[in-house]
Amino acid sequence: MSEAPSERTRVRRHPERGAYDRQTVGAILDEALICHVAWVTPEGEPRVIPTIHARAGDTLYIHGSQASRTLRALRAGAPVCVEATILDGLVLARSTPMHSMNYRSVVVFGSPREVTDREEMDLAQRVLVEHVIPGRTADARVPTDVEFKETAIFALSLEEASAKIRTGGPGDPDEDLELPVWAGVLPLRLAPGEPEPDDRLAPGIQTPGYVTGYRRGGPTM
Amino acid sequence: MSEAPSERTRVRRHPERGAYDRQTVGAILDEALICHVAWVTPEGEPRVIPTIHARAGDTLYIHGSQASRTLRALRAGAPVCVEATILDGLVLARSTPMHSMNYRSVVVFGSPREVTDREEMDLAQRVLVEHVIPGRTADARVPTDVEFKETAIFALSLEEASAKIRTGGPGDPDEDLELPVWAGVLPLRLAPGEPEPDDRLAPGIQTPGYVTGYRRGGPTM
Repeated sequence: MSEAPSERTRVRRHPERGAYDRQTVGAILDEALICHVAWVTPEGEPRVIPTIHARAGDTLYIHGSQASRTLRALRAGAPVCVEATILDGLVLARSTPMHSMNYRSVVVFGSPREVTDREEMDLAQRVLVEHVIPGRTADARVPTDVEFKETAIFALSLEEASAKIRTGGPGDPDEDLELPVWAGVLPLRLAPGEPEPDDRLAPGIQTPGYVTGYRRGGPTM
Repeated sequence: MSEAPSERTRVRRHPERGAYDRQTVGAILDEALICHVAWVTPEGEPRVIPTIHARAGDTLYIHGSQASRTLRALRAGAPVCVEATILDGLVLARSTPMHSMNYRSVVVFGSPREVTDREEMDLAQRVLVEHVIPGRTADARVPTDVEFKETAIFALSLEEASAKIRTGGPGDPDEDLELPVWAGVLPLRLAPGEPEPDDRLAPGIQTPGYVTGYRRGGPTM
């Protein structure tokens, strides 16, 4: 296991669950559909919103809108704390306090910069869409100049990031093992349902394979 | 639609998606398995962590551990911003900028108080377990006095809360409707896999119905 890149990224509670290598951090960010961005208002109050993100190498792109309060705060270079969590299962122990969840999470610290370069903007919006639904950018219409202007995308370095992962069964103490209580793991996964075509679909359009075969990554179940 | 309880809870971007009634807010909190708690460090930095929550009437209980840094900050009465999001689907529009997600989210503002009363602590740990897996507290061993002391639970009033909900298909402008691009919604749902019994299970223990029949609420798919 690699070392924490900073004191605030070091996993202190359950340090054995911590990981700091780019591959582990990157894989979790790539699978998580959304992240939570926290920042501090000028009045010193905490704020957190869910948003879409995508990774390109060591850069995390965060999506927003020109109209959003959040992103106005981010534009001023405010530090953020970004968190993404994937739930992998419910861990049922023989006692209530030993219950837990299996999860993979990432925390990233930094001060985002706004993406203004047209070329990077184009890359960022592509990776954001491909992050959510791989294959989609080959089909969908690209943004117009006006649409680009209405979009705000921020870039955050992944330099200061850490992962925290829990796997496996319940950690019941030996004295609980004889209790007549079922214990184990109930795996969880974000599963797609039946695609619902828009009722204004142009004639003859088939549902693409990246929709019918959609599957979010993660542990095999 | 009821009114926002405060200026900071008012949904400003897409106000038509906002809701402020207790029933809507409560239903989202009840279904979301985890929430994200954001607070500000004494140094003025933003922090956010995922944790388990549960609602009892107009109180939101937030689970933690005595060892956690977060909860030491909360104990000092620091204001928090709590966010819970349920993803309901991917919304595929005919152009990349019109892509969206269907979701139900809640934001709660306030300053949590630590639960210290033994009776409320007992209630809070029960609703936390029942929130995650209804039926479980009838089987699992209750906490010992020592275990109660190792647990930190915080209570937050739901007085200052708002919900934000997006439903339905893509909002493509008319001029995009003739594009030869599939559009529609791919529903998403947190789905359980096959239960994995602990390998130290006492003999003759059957997997309970609340595990085999586990289903997180949400829109019928």
